[in-house]
Amino acid sequence: MRTVSIVNVTSYTALELLRLLTQHPEFIVTSVTGRSAVGKRLENIFPQLHAVLPSPDRNVLAIDPALVITDEAEQTDLAFVCLPHAAAAESAISLLKRGIKVVDLSADFRLRDANVYEEWYKHKHPAPALLETAVYGLCERYRERVRTTSLVANPGCHTTTSILALIPAVATGIVGPNIIINSITGISGGGRTPSLSYHYPEANEDASAYGLEGHRHMPEIVQELEAAAEAGGHPVKDGLRLTFVPHLAPMTRGILATCYADLLEDEQGRILTSEEIRSFYRQYYTNEPFVHIVEQPPHTKWTYGSNHCFIYPIVDRRTKRLIVVSCLDNLVKGAAGQAIQNANLLCGLPETMGLAGLGMNP
Amino acid sequence: MRTVSIVNVTSYTALELLRLLTQHPEFIVTSVTGRSAVGKRLENIFPQLHAVLPSPDRNVLAIDPALVITDEAEQTDLAFVCLPHAAAAESAISLLKRGIKVVDLSADFRLRDANVYEEWYKHKHPAPALLETAVYGLCERYRERVRTTSLVANPGCHTTTSILALIPAVATGIVGPNIIINSITGISGGGRTPSLSYHYPEANEDASAYGLEGHRHMPEIVQELEAAAEAGGHPVKDGLRLTFVPHLAPMTRGILATCYADLLEDEQGRILTSEEIRSFYRQYYTNEPFVHIVEQPPHTKWTYGSNHCFIYPIVDRRTKRLIVVSCLDNLVKGAAGQAIQNANLLCGLPETMGLAGLGMNP
Amino acid sequence: MRTVSIVNVTSYTALELLRLLTQHPEFIVTSVTGRSAVGKRLENIFPQLHAVLPSPDRNVLAIDPALVITDEAEQTDLAFVCLPHAAAAESAISLLKRGIKVVDLSADFRLRDANVYEEWYKHKHPAPALLETAVYGLCERYRERVRTTSLVANPGCHTTTSILALIPAVATGIVGPNIIINSITGISGGGRTPSLSYHYPEANEDASAYGLEGHRHMPEIVQELEAAAEAGGHPVKDGLRLTFVPHLAPMTRGILATCYADLLEDEQGRILTSEEIRSFYRQYYTNEPFVHIVEQPPHTKWTYGSNHCFIYPIVDRRTKRLIVVSCLDNLVKGAAGQAIQNANLLCGLPETMGLAGLGMNP
Amino acid sequence: MRTVSIVNVTSYTALELLRLLTQHPEFIVTSVTGRSAVGKRLENIFPQLHAVLPSPDRNVLAIDPALVITDEAEQTDLAFVCLPHAAAAESAISLLKRGIKVVDLSADFRLRDANVYEEWYKHKHPAPALLETAVYGLCERYRERVRTTSLVANPGCHTTTSILALIPAVATGIVGPNIIINSITGISGGGRTPSLSYHYPEANEDASAYGLEGHRHMPEIVQELEAAAEAGGHPVKDGLRLTFVPHLAPMTRGILATCYADLLEDEQGRILTSEEIRSFYRQYYTNEPFVHIVEQPPHTKWTYGSNHCFIYPIVDRRTKRLIVVSCLDNLVKGAAGQAIQNANLLCGLPETMGLAGLGMNP
Repeated sequence: MRTVSIVNVTSYTALELLRLLTQHPEFIVTSVTGRSAVGKRLENIFPQLHAVLPSPDRNVLAIDPALVITDEAEQTDLAFVCLPHAAAAESAISLLKRGIKVVDLSADFRLRDANVYEEWYKHKHPAPALLETAVYGLCERYRERVRTTSLVANPGCHTTTSILALIPAVATGIVGPNIIINSITGISGGGRTPSLSYHYPEANEDASAYGLEGHRHMPEIVQELEAAAEAGGHPVKDGLRLTFVPHLAPMTRGILATCYADLLEDEQGRILTSEEIRSFYRQYYTNEPFVHIVEQPPHTKWTYGSNHCFIYPIVDRRTKRLIVVSCLDNLVKGAAGQAIQNANLLCGLPETMGLAGLGMNP
Repeated sequence: MRTVSIVNVTSYTALELLRLLTQHPEFIVTSVTGRSAVGKRLENIFPQLHAVLPSPDRNVLAIDPALVITDEAEQTDLAFVCLPHAAAAESAISLLKRGIKVVDLSADFRLRDANVYEEWYKHKHPAPALLETAVYGLCERYRERVRTTSLVANPGCHTTTSILALIPAVATGIVGPNIIINSITGISGGGRTPSLSYHYPEANEDASAYGLEGHRHMPEIVQELEAAAEAGGHPVKDGLRLTFVPHLAPMTRGILATCYADLLEDEQGRILTSEEIRSFYRQYYTNEPFVHIVEQPPHTKWTYGSNHCFIYPIVDRRTKRLIVVSCLDNLVKGAAGQAIQNANLLCGLPETMGLAGLGMNP
Repeated sequence: MRTVSIVNVTSYTALELLRLLTQHPEFIVTSVTGRSAVGKRLENIFPQLHAVLPSPDRNVLAIDPALVITDEAEQTDLAFVCLPHAAAAESAISLLKRGIKVVDLSADFRLRDANVYEEWYKHKHPAPALLETAVYGLCERYRERVRTTSLVANPGCHTTTSILALIPAVATGIVGPNIIINSITGISGGGRTPSLSYHYPEANEDASAYGLEGHRHMPEIVQELEAAAEAGGHPVKDGLRLTFVPHLAPMTRGILATCYADLLEDEQGRILTSEEIRSFYRQYYTNEPFVHIVEQPPHTKWTYGSNHCFIYPIVDRRTKRLIVVSCLDNLVKGAAGQAIQNANLLCGLPETMGLAGLGMNP
Repeated sequence: MRTVSIVNVTSYTALELLRLLTQHPEFIVTSVTGRSAVGKRLENIFPQLHAVLPSPDRNVLAIDPALVITDEAEQTDLAFVCLPHAAAAESAISLLKRGIKVVDLSADFRLRDANVYEEWYKHKHPAPALLETAVYGLCERYRERVRTTSLVANPGCHTTTSILALIPAVATGIVGPNIIINSITGISGGGRTPSLSYHYPEANEDASAYGLEGHRHMPEIVQELEAAAEAGGHPVKDGLRLTFVPHLAPMTRGILATCYADLLEDEQGRILTSEEIRSFYRQYYTNEPFVHIVEQPPHTKWTYGSNHCFIYPIVDRRTKRLIVVSCLDNLVKGAAGQAIQNANLLCGLPETMGLAGLGMNP
């Protein structure tokens, strides 16, 4: 068994980690921190934890609901850091010094360039030296590097959805640099702190766009798509011309990204058909346990509570555009599930351990 | 035209007043106050007010979106007070002194007994002298008295739903004193201030009971039902034995009360049939424009945005119980619509003026 | 007073017409048809109609809930046809012959070219001769022509949202031909016939894209944008390269379109700023009662139940793209409200009559 | 490993069985039937099954998405019958003859008296002889008998919620015979067949009561509570006077029952306090893995996707009534989860096997 701590356990991603870890056969949570709840027991914050049962096939509880929330994480094999950016980096520095492996769910180590970070997050990067060590934890891209690092930057939820949708096309050079990503997300992505925007009577029966002045997930998407293009031998000369607009829809979970790109013609002026694209995507992800190419537009509901991502590419022949629809659960593959996927790799465990569950439907 | 002011315009009941008043041919809003928003224009707080149009059949806007929010209400014919209890009474005192008629949407003047008020609201009543003047603004009961007062206590939303459901039975002595009221309400009833309970990801896909230690609408219901029994010549000897439990359901608007009472047998040991009860209820409310006895269980959706109340009485023959299901829109007949109904009476206008609209469906 | 009939009253657009007509001072519904409900009274199909009240300022009911549903429309001044396509055209032919003005809410007379109609609707156009007479009922574009015709093709909901968003840019030639429209719609747009896709447990907590093989509103959008470009003196040489992808979100009402286009540089290589675009849009729509340019991303909730459309244009400087977010209530400005707007014009009434109401919020 | 079949796999309870069985270490689904889908592969009916992964700690898939749906169940150790009543009994007869253990999720074997069955289900019981064999599968009551039978009648969802709430009080004689159960349920309880009532635009933003003429879960609740009273040595002389009214709320899953009963006074005229009741309930369920007595009103959301039931008893001192609020997930503890709990017992496995997961929150 490996011991893990959760830093800032009162967030939604932490709560989802707790849920998923109750099903994990190798991780055991021995330490939880939470600034506003120090001294309380876990079950006092989350009464549903009364229901934690020892699984009949093991002796130890993955989570003890009586666990007392502390100010600082105890010594464990690994820590999941669920703090907001800046605070997360501070915490990571201290954990790494104590030899604790870190999966950071904040944005602090996602951007490779400290200047880009400063531009988007409006403060100096708190630990630029660690940017070399940190591995961007999109396992589908970097699993080998994740296995050997001690610090993983868990990707953002919009980012994961979009990158998985576009990487096969960008990395093989079948599309041009004009890209539009239109994303719809559930409201849990906004976190657990109440505000008027997320107040039920405001958010229910409402759709809206946000982040139109520039959303922080955009540079992360650009960074990873350009890196994939480069790695695939199809570098983007003047950079991607990428617009990303997220939208809120009245649901708790789920992200659905609809991505638009120009298909390039081959020498005969021909573009790929939908069937060819689908077959090519299927091949690209053939060994990926959590990525599924489907034959009809996917529904976020298919992923409710699971670590899976469903992708549907189709060609708009009239305009020669590639459209790719991609969806996942923002709190699982977009946060806590992917964090466990990374933790499994960091600890030398099978990548899918504890994550084989299906989504809830209906 | 009559001028009206809205005191504390940033609440949901005030916002609903604004919406309904745009359709009212006689009231014109000339003053709005709001503690946290002084100096701002109405349309800056509620951007949807950009859409206020002059109705083609009148020259003046019922609401000017450019109206500046002030600290204290200007001189008007009538004021709608949307402040929390205690603050509301203070405001009412001052408005009445200036000769302004008041519809108070808080609980401050609903309970006739200052001691009961103190017991439930945990502070001394701020204006006990006004309790004599104040009329409980359930028009179906007290419309004649409303016409001649200057201070109306607008009833609570749970209260209106329950009282309208039970008054015909209680006032005519066909049921005994054992009463259970089980109410389901939408989340706008909790107001516009964000909190974890009303945070979308918490409230969505969730049902729960609340107020089990005693809800403040209970004494109001008991007071009015006992008064109706007394007035109907069937006083309740030892008082009603009434339990009231409200529940939250994941919807923005709507209240549905399911009320249970024991049917009394007549001298032949006979109880009324469902048809008899329904016909009797229909007769009881025959002249009421906003109360409708229906032949099937009603849906809160039928009342979405309207001032109507639908009531369905039925007899459970096996247990000799009367069950009455009643529903309305908590922000309209349960708050702002009823307030306008009262304001119409206070100003000598037709009671239904500005309130004839249907609910939105779907 | 003008008499109107509603053909196929059991649809959602018809039900919304009923609601809006109760607030209309000049129209009176004297005939309703409905294939599956012949012989029933209106209030038996829609129990909420029990609540129809005579407005205190007029003597006649705009709708009599006891109205009996017939097979064929009686003689009236005007008919709202709410039938599916093909059936709608048949009905329109017969109504026009009898001298009844027609607002057709189906797609039958929206496309000017019978061949395009046949391509998208997979059957021969049932009344190609009427295509000359029919006026596309987007009042913001064609109000003068609507005043003088007898047959109005009421625009689709996605279409209205998108066209209003893009016309100012397309008609003045500030954008190029590359356009992507990403739309999110509530589920009432799918109609009142139950199906697995719209079954509550399937549709709730779910987002998905649809119509990816080509949605029928697309040619309508292209037709109207190209016509506007032409009319504005900026014809699109090789036609627009327009992709339109609608999405379903778990809400009853509301459409939000996010539109992307390439801003053209002026001779100095300069593109417009967001402020310039906004000011230009505001000017473009300055006399439009139902179109509002706002300073922040609009919410569908602002339009809940109203005939208003909110538009927010913004420039993505990094990519030189114009983004326009536009929203409205699909059943009002996207259907029944716009139909009444057209009916007002057809009958020589003020265009906003009966439509001045605000949206419900929350 | 034990092989299991699912009879009528296209229902929601069957789909939930599939989800839960992917997490079960001992059951393997080798046969699925479905009248309308014979010959199709499972993944064609439920595309989300593409995501089924072999759990890293076992070699065999609990569910093979390529499994072909047949007309009749293959030979397996156990069958979950998800057919509607009547059809379910026919299927059970045939399965039992072939030596297959049966968990029947329909109502066919829940009522012990074939006459009561006929009264409520309006047809002769299809297999009255089996009523002797059948065990009512509320494990908290009958787990020893379940272990030794071959036919389990899986309880209804409303029933489980209500019985668990009331058994401790009824079995120990602390309450009188007057009982009211007011239940709120999510819409998945109505099944997977589309209908106008469950059409999203109708069901969303709506609350309503149903089954007021008498709901079929009522006799089941009465039977089990009276049996518990009898078994506890406190038989109810003239039978319970029980009224049960279910309500629909706009959510996919979850049942919350609020139960009201009269507390009996002891010889000193004293009634129990809330604390005493809570402590007594806690003791009563002390060894139950899935029943939790909590210190605050529980939320259906705490049980979303889990097999747990949360119960909150409280005393209304003013009226001397006991109020018990109880909730669970109607598709898990109210259907598929409880079915697996029963299947575990039938097969000699630990009762909680495959069911230790927490609910999803948020």
